[in-house]
Amino acid sequence: MAEPGAPVTRGKRPPKGEPVVDRALALLAAFDRDHRQLGLLDLSRRAGLPKSSAARLADRLHHWGALERDERGRYSIGLRLLEVAALAPRGQGLRELALPFMSDLAAAIHQHVLLVVRDGDVGLLIDRISSHRALAPLYNPGDRLPLHSTGAGLVLLAHAPEQFQRAVLAGDLLQEPERIPLSATALRRTLAAIRRERVAVLRRTHPVPLVTVAAPVVERGGDVVAALSVVVPEPTVDTRRLGGAVTTAARGISRVLDDHG
Amino acid sequence: MAEPGAPVTRGKRPPKGEPVVDRALALLAAFDRDHRQLGLLDLSRRAGLPKSSAARLADRLHHWGALERDERGRYSIGLRLLEVAALAPRGQGLRELALPFMSDLAAAIHQHVLLVVRDGDVGLLIDRISSHRALAPLYNPGDRLPLHSTGAGLVLLAHAPEQFQRAVLAGDLLQEPERIPLSATALRRTLAAIRRERVAVLRRTHPVPLVTVAAPVVERGGDVVAALSVVVPEPTVDTRRLGGAVTTAARGISRVLDDHG
Repeated sequence: MAEPGAPVTRGKRPPKGEPVVDRALALLAAFDRDHRQLGLLDLSRRAGLPKSSAARLADRLHHWGALERDERGRYSIGLRLLEVAALAPRGQGLRELALPFMSDLAAAIHQHVLLVVRDGDVGLLIDRISSHRALAPLYNPGDRLPLHSTGAGLVLLAHAPEQFQRAVLAGDLLQEPERIPLSATALRRTLAAIRRERVAVLRRTHPVPLVTVAAPVVERGGDVVAALSVVVPEPTVDTRRLGGAVTTAARGISRVLDDHG
Repeated sequence: MAEPGAPVTRGKRPPKGEPVVDRALALLAAFDRDHRQLGLLDLSRRAGLPKSSAARLADRLHHWGALERDERGRYSIGLRLLEVAALAPRGQGLRELALPFMSDLAAAIHQHVLLVVRDGDVGLLIDRISSHRALAPLYNPGDRLPLHSTGAGLVLLAHAPEQFQRAVLAGDLLQEPERIPLSATALRRTLAAIRRERVAVLRRTHPVPLVTVAAPVVERGGDVVAALSVVVPEPTVDTRRLGGAVTTAARGISRVLDDHG
């Protein structure tokens, strides 16, 4: 883990500061949706750290509140991180402004409403409001979504810098989760249509027939900062009406973003 | 900061691992609602670190995604922390289950709906859905609320361990934000009433006349894990009807918690 050229000392103590931080972050990265609670042994294994080192670092994270421990001694992500994460300008600030609009949409469509931002070459699901009677969700808040095979992802991709779009189109394009190969030509045409119509409509057959309709959230200056989407089961859909509702809500969010910018 | 008995070495490098982690965490703690973006100098000052050390640690946090940098080089909390925080079992897991119920309530009352958990001696606002036409909010997601002078806080306090309640009642009790002294006897009576009636109704005159109605979210086994509350302006309120709506939504959340427990 030492950087090239950094002085390396051998011993039980980590040789210098930064790798220690990386190790502490590795402890946080050891948790995922299927591992929300981890005993020390699992935590150290998943973080790739010796147990003694994991225990020492987890203790500091626990002391600060980044980790919590239950009565059985298992670690989990702590509330303090939720507090800190609430300060992320991209993401939390956006979702606070978006939530009332999402709530209105959710009340109207009784299905899923998603807010997604681009994080490098994936979409990050910032938030989802789902009706009690909605389809089983494909993605959960904090999950990463493929850009080229989700409605919100397509909107973000269509408005990403050209160079980035070219790189994506040149890569392997598989429809997730079925992993069906996609044609770059067809995708290029889809992206152009999304830019023209300011809305993406994506039909999926897997896991059930459903339609996603997504629209861009635009900040002052015209940059697309997020995508708002709804996911509804196929037979119930009037996509034109749904497109209108999603576009209106996305415009509402853009407007309050503008007021707060 | 060195642990008793730990070998201490002097030099430019931090002597051992743990303080480095504390310093990295101090960088995260340097951000707050009024300081979502910080240049390196402000960041190092607010974290109480030398600039060189702050730069080195911020670089590691940036590399991992816990911090982001804008085009002007200013740091902010990164999306990666939002991803990790989404794994906190208390908090995020809870809010995912609660959000549809909160959304329904918000659609019905057109004001604020809050979800709060106890974090030590304060309440932590996990989430808030607010109507476009709601009063200016007193608290934002990630904020800490006083337990003894908010509706949700009173519910959490009323169901906290007895020893904890005694300690709070023995302390200085000021009505926030006016800082009017509260009587411990009156508060004890209020808490007993909340336990009996399973709902808290709190009237405030500051900053405007408003009513908060809050109800407990209960997990399997009977522990109160959160409080759900609504905040509405005074003249519009039928508190009995509102109490019924909040209690019903809180029971709904408790029920799905049970299904997922």
